[in-house]
Amino acid sequence: MPADFEAMWREIAPVGRNVATGGYLRQPWTSPEAELRAWFVEQCEARGLRVERDGLGNLVGWWEPEGTDPSDRLLTGSHLDSVLEGGAYDGPLGVVSALAAIDRMREHAVVPARPVGVGVFVEEEGSRFGLACLGSRLLTGATPWATARELRDRDGVFLADALEAQGLPGMTGTAGTAGTTGDDVDLLAGVTTFVELHVEQGRALVDLGHAVGVASGIWPHGRYRFDLDGVADHAGTTRMEDRRDPMLTYATTVLAANEAARLAGERATFGRVEVNPNGTNAVPSRVTGWLDARASSVASLEALVERITARASEGAERDGTTVTVTAESVSGEVSFDPGLAASLATGHASGDWPVLPTQAGHDAGILSAAGIPTAMLFVRNPTGVSHSPDEHAEVPDCLAGVDALAETLTRLVS
Amino acid sequence: MPADFEAMWREIAPVGRNVATGGYLRQPWTSPEAELRAWFVEQCEARGLRVERDGLGNLVGWWEPEGTDPSDRLLTGSHLDSVLEGGAYDGPLGVVSALAAIDRMREHAVVPARPVGVGVFVEEEGSRFGLACLGSRLLTGATPWATARELRDRDGVFLADALEAQGLPGMTGTAGTAGTTGDDVDLLAGVTTFVELHVEQGRALVDLGHAVGVASGIWPHGRYRFDLDGVADHAGTTRMEDRRDPMLTYATTVLAANEAARLAGERATFGRVEVNPNGTNAVPSRVTGWLDARASSVASLEALVERITARASEGAERDGTTVTVTAESVSGEVSFDPGLAASLATGHASGDWPVLPTQAGHDAGILSAAGIPTAMLFVRNPTGVSHSPDEHAEVPDCLAGVDALAETLTRLVS
Repeated sequence: MPADFEAMWREIAPVGRNVATGGYLRQPWTSPEAELRAWFVEQCEARGLRVERDGLGNLVGWWEPEGTDPSDRLLTGSHLDSVLEGGAYDGPLGVVSALAAIDRMREHAVVPARPVGVGVFVEEEGSRFGLACLGSRLLTGATPWATARELRDRDGVFLADALEAQGLPGMTGTAGTAGTTGDDVDLLAGVTTFVELHVEQGRALVDLGHAVGVASGIWPHGRYRFDLDGVADHAGTTRMEDRRDPMLTYATTVLAANEAARLAGERATFGRVEVNPNGTNAVPSRVTGWLDARASSVASLEALVERITARASEGAERDGTTVTVTAESVSGEVSFDPGLAASLATGHASGDWPVLPTQAGHDAGILSAAGIPTAMLFVRNPTGVSHSPDEHAEVPDCLAGVDALAETLTRLVS
Repeated sequence: MPADFEAMWREIAPVGRNVATGGYLRQPWTSPEAELRAWFVEQCEARGLRVERDGLGNLVGWWEPEGTDPSDRLLTGSHLDSVLEGGAYDGPLGVVSALAAIDRMREHAVVPARPVGVGVFVEEEGSRFGLACLGSRLLTGATPWATARELRDRDGVFLADALEAQGLPGMTGTAGTAGTTGDDVDLLAGVTTFVELHVEQGRALVDLGHAVGVASGIWPHGRYRFDLDGVADHAGTTRMEDRRDPMLTYATTVLAANEAARLAGERATFGRVEVNPNGTNAVPSRVTGWLDARASSVASLEALVERITARASEGAERDGTTVTVTAESVSGEVSFDPGLAASLATGHASGDWPVLPTQAGHDAGILSAAGIPTAMLFVRNPTGVSHSPDEHAEVPDCLAGVDALAETLTRLVS
């Protein structure tokens, strides 16, 4: 018998964990993340699922009862990578719950009328190459390979080289060599429904008193790089009035972003900054900050970024610096299939599941935007904290999530 | 005949230069800095100077005419390390000028009545281990070896291990093995006068219309680490009002420091920051900023840092974060020997040299504080820019500096 939910959870808990902080470092195409993907393949094999891997390392384990139609596949799953110093649940909960849901369906002698796949998408967080949902973006063509291969990580490593170091060919269009594995495998071929289970990020379910909810859609969001350029100089000898210090412009922009988002009921964060030369006794020549912005509509997202850019430019004028804003990735609003969401949320013995929006991007958003009918289930997060070692979900809620996913998949394959 | 000033300058110009930015990366106990120290030893040997090296890599090339008294030595020189992405002049100008000044004295058939040494101090900038003037601090005992050996660089390397990687024993109290080299060599033994030539940092000489000036003293200054702690969280899903974001506290502190220094006519800079986890889509758990503060008196420096700390604490209270301030190094006011400065500044055919204070720390300040009568010469910097690839001095001014140093040393050995 395959490992149950709690046993699987214990197995992966130590992988990539920083024992000092409790945070996870599961960046894509690094050892911990490769270890998790190898573990996933083992779990699929223990369940008799046929594993396909593409040239990026995206994985699907297929349950294909005889006579099912490969052009009408149901896919579930999530991702195994984490943000830097992230939590245990964001991503892995959806993968482990999917494997446990397959077990639950078999315990109830469900024989699917469609193939069912459990998928793992790479670089969902964008923590290494800066582009969130990179695996699903490449799979759906939302981002072309020619663009992605030029991405570099913080150490200057190209994506194609990071893949090669893991024995992955990328998307070069040549056939794979290891049976079901290769860069010509299209893991989304024939997929007509996608369901992703995810730990909730935020505190809606705890306030509503529900263990499980269904997503209505994803707020539009984007990452914008602010390059602030000044003139390097001696921190001791340069008079304050002679400086062109981009750190001042950065500080002004950080506070302006916070104020703009608070006033509008939206989200704006500067969580990442790089300084050159980053020396204690030198006025910096350049400060680069990354803005993460999210809003309830595309128009309000654009207005939010415009307000922040305007305040940055005012600061730059005052400080004698310059500001250049580059949108590194922008995702429009996602509305998940409303009929699908409504049908999944209703008709349960225990009452309807709440339907709510999320401010976090997901592979489900990319697949939905690519025209695949898609739904998401959320599992209650008692504190709402995410992207942090403190991210948490209670075991009974996780098990309720497994039941809900098994019930959802059963409905969709009956 | 040894290489002249301009030939020496050309020889060292490419060492550690970032061709993309024009900035220098000559961090102590790295290859470029070791190359410069090897070059210095060669230059000393070409001039028949006897080279001593201590266990840290501090160097002195001695000119010791027969009959001179080893307990009454005159030392000149400066440093060869740079800040990150620094300029060419800060440090090396004083070393190259000292070698050229020895040549000038010999051309004028000066036979010194005292031993004359040309010295190179390691880690003057503190760019690697965070403690400025580390070499001279250890030499004078201002910092004990037991403290210094525990210092770590940004990669976590201990000072003692960085030294060992360069074949340097540190200050372990055991004898050296290579003749004049060893960790038991006291390079300051018998030194009764120190003169350091340095490129000016700031724009006083250009405004005064002089190529060369004499230092009166150094402003008190310090480096203070601000550890700002909050709670990591998801940048998209966490409501603005639920956050405890230390980046906001950092931004407030940066602007408060600038305002406080401007109002007081002093200096305060945040040029270095480190963020954890430093991910675009995560509210940081910790932001650490380093404050470089300088003021005209110890009391006003303390008041400046207190004001900035108070503003940081106000910000932390508003943001739900905490602030911890650690003074990493603080240097009191230095007044160079006033009689020495006056005697060097006057009696020149071309008129008196101006006497002026500096806001920059120097090994000369450490030696002066240790009771060695000390003087500094400054060479005009036409833009005032320093700690930057744009740092510059005109060749005629550099040659005037060599003449001034030769004249100064000649006076002091006659």
